[in-house]
Parts: sequence; C-alpha cells; structure tokens
Amino acid sequence: MLPFGTDANEKHLDDILSYIDEHQDEFVQNLKEWMAVPSDSSDPELRSEVTRMMNITAERIKTLGGNVEIVDMGFEKLYDGRSIPFPPAILAELEKDPAKATVCFYGHVDVQPASKEDGWKTDPYNMTEINGNLYGRGATDNKGPVLAWIHALETHKSLKQDIPVNLKFIIEGVEEIGSPGLADLIAGHLQFFSDVDYIVISDNVWLSKKPALTYGTRGNAYFFVEVESGQKDLHSGTFGGIIHEAMRDLVYILANLVDSSGHIVIPGIYDDVAPLTEEENKLYENIEFDLEEHKNSSGVDTFLYKTKEEILQHLWRQPSLTIHGIEGAFSGTGTKTVIPSKVIGKFSIRQVPNMRIPEVEKQVTKHIEDVFARLHSPNKLKVYLTIGAVPWVANIDDLQYKAAKNAVTKVFGVIPDMIRDGSTIPLAKTFHDLTQKSVMMLPIGGADDGEHSQNEKISRSNYIQGTKLFASYFHELSKLHKDLIDAKQLKN
Amino acid sequence: MLPFGTDANEKHLDDILSYIDEHQDEFVQNLKEWMAVPSDSSDPELRSEVTRMMNITAERIKTLGGNVEIVDMGFEKLYDGRSIPFPPAILAELEKDPAKATVCFYGHVDVQPASKEDGWKTDPYNMTEINGNLYGRGATDNKGPVLAWIHALETHKSLKQDIPVNLKFIIEGVEEIGSPGLADLIAGHLQFFSDVDYIVISDNVWLSKKPALTYGTRGNAYFFVEVESGQKDLHSGTFGGIIHEAMRDLVYILANLVDSSGHIVIPGIYDDVAPLTEEENKLYENIEFDLEEHKNSSGVDTFLYKTKEEILQHLWRQPSLTIHGIEGAFSGTGTKTVIPSKVIGKFSIRQVPNMRIPEVEKQVTKHIEDVFARLHSPNKLKVYLTIGAVPWVANIDDLQYKAAKNAVTKVFGVIPDMIRDGSTIPLAKTFHDLTQKSVMMLPIGGADDGEHSQNEKISRSNYIQGTKLFASYFHELSKLHKDLIDAKQLKN
Repeated sequence: MLPFGTDANEKHLDDILSYIDEHQDEFVQNLKEWMAVPSDSSDPELRSEVTRMMNITAERIKTLGGNVEIVDMGFEKLYDGRSIPFPPAILAELEKDPAKATVCFYGHVDVQPASKEDGWKTDPYNMTEINGNLYGRGATDNKGPVLAWIHALETHKSLKQDIPVNLKFIIEGVEEIGSPGLADLIAGHLQFFSDVDYIVISDNVWLSKKPALTYGTRGNAYFFVEVESGQKDLHSGTFGGIIHEAMRDLVYILANLVDSSGHIVIPGIYDDVAPLTEEENKLYENIEFDLEEHKNSSGVDTFLYKTKEEILQHLWRQPSLTIHGIEGAFSGTGTKTVIPSKVIGKFSIRQVPNMRIPEVEKQVTKHIEDVFARLHSPNKLKVYLTIGAVPWVANIDDLQYKAAKNAVTKVFGVIPDMIRDGSTIPLAKTFHDLTQKSVMMLPIGGADDGEHSQNEKISRSNYIQGTKLFASYFHELSKLHKDLIDAKQLKN
Repeated sequence: MLPFGTDANEKHLDDILSYIDEHQDEFVQNLKEWMAVPSDSSDPELRSEVTRMMNITAERIKTLGGNVEIVDMGFEKLYDGRSIPFPPAILAELEKDPAKATVCFYGHVDVQPASKEDGWKTDPYNMTEINGNLYGRGATDNKGPVLAWIHALETHKSLKQDIPVNLKFIIEGVEEIGSPGLADLIAGHLQFFSDVDYIVISDNVWLSKKPALTYGTRGNAYFFVEVESGQKDLHSGTFGGIIHEAMRDLVYILANLVDSSGHIVIPGIYDDVAPLTEEENKLYENIEFDLEEHKNSSGVDTFLYKTKEEILQHLWRQPSLTIHGIEGAFSGTGTKTVIPSKVIGKFSIRQVPNMRIPEVEKQVTKHIEDVFARLHSPNKLKVYLTIGAVPWVANIDDLQYKAAKNAVTKVFGVIPDMIRDGSTIPLAKTFHDLTQKSVMMLPIGGADDGEHSQNEKISRSNYIQGTKLFASYFHELSKLHKDLIDAKQLKN
C-alpha cells in the first residue's frame, strides 16, 4: 500500500479524473460491446445471452485481479412447465487491505425486453450515439453504471495507482424479473458480507439534471380483492335484476379505498407514517425538480398538489393507493352482455416508513370486510396480499453518504439533492436487512433516461462524469473512513 | 299443390315427425359442421368466418329450391379507425302459393365469443355430445334453431311432401353485436315483407322443462363511460399519489348506478315502467318455473327475491342494470403496477315497456355527470350509448300464437307457458314496428342452455323435438289460416 499524503491523494485523483476524460471514447466503445448482448432475462429464448453476459462481466472483474466466484442459481420453472437454468450470479473481491474501508457494489447486467417493433428509433442492441446520448437497451439500467464502476477501478490499475478502498462485487442477471434467489444468495453468503462496511447500488436515476443521492424507496403491498357470486358467468338478459352481481359489490369496495383527493380512507393506514421532521422538511426546499417538465413527461395536465414540496413528499414519504384493474370482468373492446361471476379487483398501496406490511394487511382486510358487510351481499369475499415489498430509508448522516456528497461536489461542482424513489427497489432494503450494513443508492443516470421504456439511453456526459464520480467516491470514502478509524483509535 | 284432406294432412305430418326422429344423427352431424365455423361477429379478425357461415347458410337454403338474395351490408367502422365489411345478410323465399299463409323466419348464424381459456370444458368450436347434450358455441344461440327450421323443410322435400305454408327467410350475421343495419335492411325491403302474414323468431329459450311461447322481451341500452387522466399509462411507483387516477373516478361512478338491492339509483329511470294489470299478473301464477332449479343452473345460491312471481316480474317487466367490465385497465392474471390513463366502464340497462331509449340516455348521462361533478376531478369524462335495443310485447290472442300452442300440444303433449324473455331480442320489436306483421318467438332451447356463457349447449332432445315442432307449426298454421280465410270469404 502506498502511504498517501492528502496532497498526493488529490494529485492521484486528479490524474485519474483526467485519464477518464481522455479515455472516454474507449469507455463508450466498451459499453457498446456490452449493450450488443441481448441479455433480456424475461425471455427464456435469450437466457443463454444473459449467461454469456454474466461470463463477460466475470472475466472483466478477473482482469482487475479479482477473485471471482460464479454462483449457480438453480433452475427457473416456466409457465409452460419447462425448467431452464437461471443465469449464475457473481460474487467477487479484489485484494484485501485491513486498513481500508470495504465497499460492496451491487449491479445487474440483464435488461428489459426491447425490439424495434416496440417503437425504438434505433436498434436497441446496437448502441447509437445521437446528440451526446448513448441510446440502447441497458444503457442506464444497468450496464452503463456497472461498467462505469469497473472503468473507475481499471483506471487505477492503468495508472498503477492503488485503489484506496477494498472492493467486493455482487452481480446478478435476473433483476428485471424480480431478482429471484437474490435474498437467498445474500443470506447464504453472510460470511462474504461480514467484512463489508458499505454497500453501493447504482440502479436508479436522478430526479432532474442535478446529481442526487437516493436514501429511500417506497414499498408496495399489492392486494387482490375477489368477489364471487356463483360458478359461472351469466347473461345479463337472463339473470339481470334477480342476482347480487359480483361487479356491483366489487366496484363499491374499490370506490371505498381512496377518496378523490388521493387520501386513502382505510382506517389507521396513516398511523405509522413517519412524522415529517423539521430537518427532513428542509431537504425538500433545495431539491431541483421541474414540475412542468414532470407534468409533460407524465402526459397529465393537473396534479393533485401544486408545490414541488407537496408533490415530492407524496411520491416519497406518503403512501398512495392505485387501483390497477379487474380480472374476470369483460375487458375487451366492444360490448358483451355478461354478468361476470368471479371478479378480482387489483390495487396496491405504496407504503412508506414506518408502515409495516402485516399491519397494512390487517387494516386493508378489516376495512374491506367492513365495507362489504354494508352491502348485505350473499357473495363470497376474499382479500389477499400478493406482493409485500417493504419500504427502505437510510440514515443520510452515514459516512458513505457524506463521502458521496463530497465526490459529487468535486466532480459536478454542485451539492447533490438528497432524494428518494417512489417506486419499490427492494434491493436496498434486502441488503440492509440481511447484512445490517450501510446501503446507499448512488445513481449516475439522468431523469429522462427512460429505463424500461423505448429509446432507453444514458448521456455520454452522465456516463463519463459518473465514472469519475465513482473514482472520487473511493477517495472521499477512504479519507472519511480513515478519520473515523483514527478517531476510534484515539478514543480507545 | 297437393289437395290435403284433414286426415291426409295428419298422416303426412306423422310421416314427417317419424322421418325427423329417424334422421336425428344426420341432423346432429349437420349442426356439428355449422358449429365448427367460428363465426364470432364481435372479433374483427374472425369477420371472414362469419361471411363464410352466411354463404354456407345461403347454399343450404338454395338446395330447398329457394330464391336467395345475398345483401351487401356495407362497412363497419372500428374503434381503431379501420373499416371492415359487415357480413352480408340473406333474404330468401321458397315457391309462392297465394292460397297458403306466408311465414317469414328470422335467424342469425353469428355467435358470441368463446375460447377454451374462458373455462369451456370442451372445444367450443368442436361440438361434443355428453349425456344427451350437444355442447359448443352457437348450439342454442342460434345455429341449432336455424338448422332445425331448415331440417323441418328439408324433411318435406325428402318425403316429397308439399310444404303447407309459403316460406321466407331473413338471416343475418351480426346479431351478437346488436344487428347493425338490420332495421335498414327491413325498411329497405318492405316489398319483401308485404305478403308475409307471420314472422317467427326462434332465438331464445324456454323458462323450464316445459315448452313456452314468448310474447315479450326486455330491451338493452348499453353504455360506455370513459374517464381519461392523460395520454399514457403510468407507473404507480413514479406517479402514484400525485395524480387524479382515472380508475378511482370510474369505480366511483360505477358504484353509484345501482344499489345492493338491485334498485337502479338513476333519477327518473322507473317513471315510464308499465303498470302491472290484473290480467297480466294472473299469467304468472300458472307458469312452470322451478326456482331451485333456476338457482342451480345459474350457479348462484341466493337471488334478490324469494317468490316465483317476483323473480319473473324482475326478469321480464322490470328494468335491471349490470356492470359488465372495464376496458383499458389491467385485466390479466398476476400483478401489474400500472396507473391506467384511459378506462372505459361498460354497463347496460335492460329496459322494459314503456321506457324510451332517448329518455333513458338523457337520464343516465345527466346522472353520471352529476356523480362525476362531486369528485371535482380534472379528468375527462365521456358517456355514450353504444347499443339501444328497444323492448317488445305482443298480443297473445294472435292466430299464430294459437297455431304454435296447438303444435306444442301435439309434439310435447302439454300446453305451452306464455312467457317473456329478460334478454334483448329487439328483433321482435323491430320486425313488428317496421312491417306491422304479427311476430312470434317460438323457442326450442332449454332453460339451462347457457347461451352467451361457457359450455353453451342444446339438448339432442330439444333440437330434434324442436325440428318436429316447426314442422307441426307449419301444419297447424296452415289449418287455422285456411279457417280464417274461409271465415273472411263467408263474411264477404
């Protein structure tokens, strides 16, 4: 290990950042090669491409000097009865220095489906640069960030510089189908995580053009409410007027979940919502968020709230309830004179800290049973939870958040916004709960990257500045971690 | 024309009925071939199959010696902007003898949608006989009855017997989508109907195991209520909690149409319902109607009413409102975290004499607009009527009702119940209003045939006895018509 003085450190970092700038075309070319692999995990026919992508990634980590373990993830049972292998996962670690902090990076190299027919302007698997944007599937979700992280490390090697932190990797190939087996993988390798200090996930995007750190996500409790009037669908001419129709009961129940102001009317549902502290409230003031642009991108004219603060708080720290649809009723175009016999209403609640799934489930079930009781209906009612994804919130006073803040300030010249994500990213919570380590989401993608959408992209600038951000983060973390260790030693 | 004496007539009829019994396997096989054609008029992709079915029908009528006109019905404008041809209609007539009564038979050879995935136990387009029942789409609605009518005529030809009435046909292929263009077809061919004495429709079912004649039907006003929040579906994580969700508005509207006792809550909707006369009320007492069996066949445990009379009156002479489903929301199995942007609720009102469609449309539109106004929603609302089928009621003292009553008594050995149908068969009303001729509905399907449902069927017995009923009806009508003419001549 090189004995870095602070000045030497800064000089070394500046060399690294310059190197990254100078080699950006090479880094873009590497990304193009990764994006040429159609590693769509949702398509059984492309499963071998995901495995190929995992091997490419493993080989690249090996050239860093990493010790790479390819973990077999077993078989996936398809709907048609076939079983096909899951792509393997990667657990890797670079050389270990007990004096340094240890960072574990999570990423995935599978992608969402994409085809030209869906409305892509360019071939989704042939990365195309237009006006400074790198278009193609996986650009921002998540190949770009994974490769940026690797490039940051490779740059140290190219410049023969010591990496100021210890590095571990956990890379998977099934994130886009819900990360089956990931929790088991973590739980089964707790030894691997035992010496990890910080876990970094870079699998989301900024809120605006301004860099951001993500410290929380909402959860999702997805409910089915099933009403059954009989064994088969009936004709509305032959039976309309003499039976308690299941749809009538169901729409009444669905109409009694949330009011027209967006307020969930289920008793007790807000009881456990974390109170807004003065400190948290202040965070919202400085966040860059273009309300008009957000409206334009949503295609909606009028939001429920007028101010930036209200909007963000309702997306991030307030629960919401959405009615997604009904299974079993007539849903086609045209007209059908059916009385559906069994209908399943589907809705979900985006929960926030400190709501607890079992409590939410109890409140929802009781409320629906109470509403249903008012109807005096002889129909059969069932309420059940199908997804229970918990929310996550990190302590933003944690050391790695400070390091990331410093790194952003150095690379981008601005203090990052502290943001949350209204969507469910169960990864952060899973990592935190299973390993009890500090977890941070450090996005490098822009707000308009269109992950999961047609014409996904990452800008060349975000990709290259993101690489520099990761390199800077290693250095900032190293410094703060050293201070922390020193302070601890002084205390003892 | 053979000069029939009464005894000769009866002998001829007995020969015909025996022939029908002896050839039942052949008749069943013919029906299987018709049912193999997926002539689903609601599916634009299957439109050519409906046209094929019309051609098959036309060819068959031609072999009876009929003069068949294939009438072009123009184009259908689909919701997506495409135009596709309507299947043609058939107008046909057999040889004309001015001394005989002229009967015009209406039928349709298109069917409701059907697929194995909907819960059919057998392939809906491969007729399967199980325990004396012929299962498959179109079995009872309406291919079975149309073919039974043709078989009754073919039997006369096979036995080289003169048909005792003059025959006309009007056959269409769009009944299941509301018979667009049929009224225009009739109105444009009044000359064709000018010498018709009696119009027979056999497109409904009995009320019990006892044969029945139908003298009234409910109408149907099918409404679409559309709520639109924006231009595209959104992700409930990214937007849940800040927008006025279209589904929330829609379920509220749908929950405010009918109460849990089946009472329609739209102001004024009951104003024009015909009062129940003492005479009509008496008709209900003798009708054979097994409430328990009706419950069993419906698969529903508890009806809204307890007595036979209440049940029948709510099916026949009271309006009802059914919510059929929602287009545009998530309707698949599993979970999808979508906020649908444009959802279309579909419901229909079965109206009864003397409700008028324009008045119903006005009441429904105003009510929904009033309910929506309570929500203070910025979303766009549209309410529109897509089917406006009027109710019908006939004079049951009419001559062809007596002929049919005699025919039923001969073939089945019982006096038929005088019933109405809760379903919409606007045809009867349309034919009556446009032609001013006597219209009768002469069903041969059983109460448990499940038209429009999964596992639609007709029993082999009903199909074959129904064929015999039609043959007997020709003979009974011929006799009564002759008496009528004789009486008229005596008078003059």
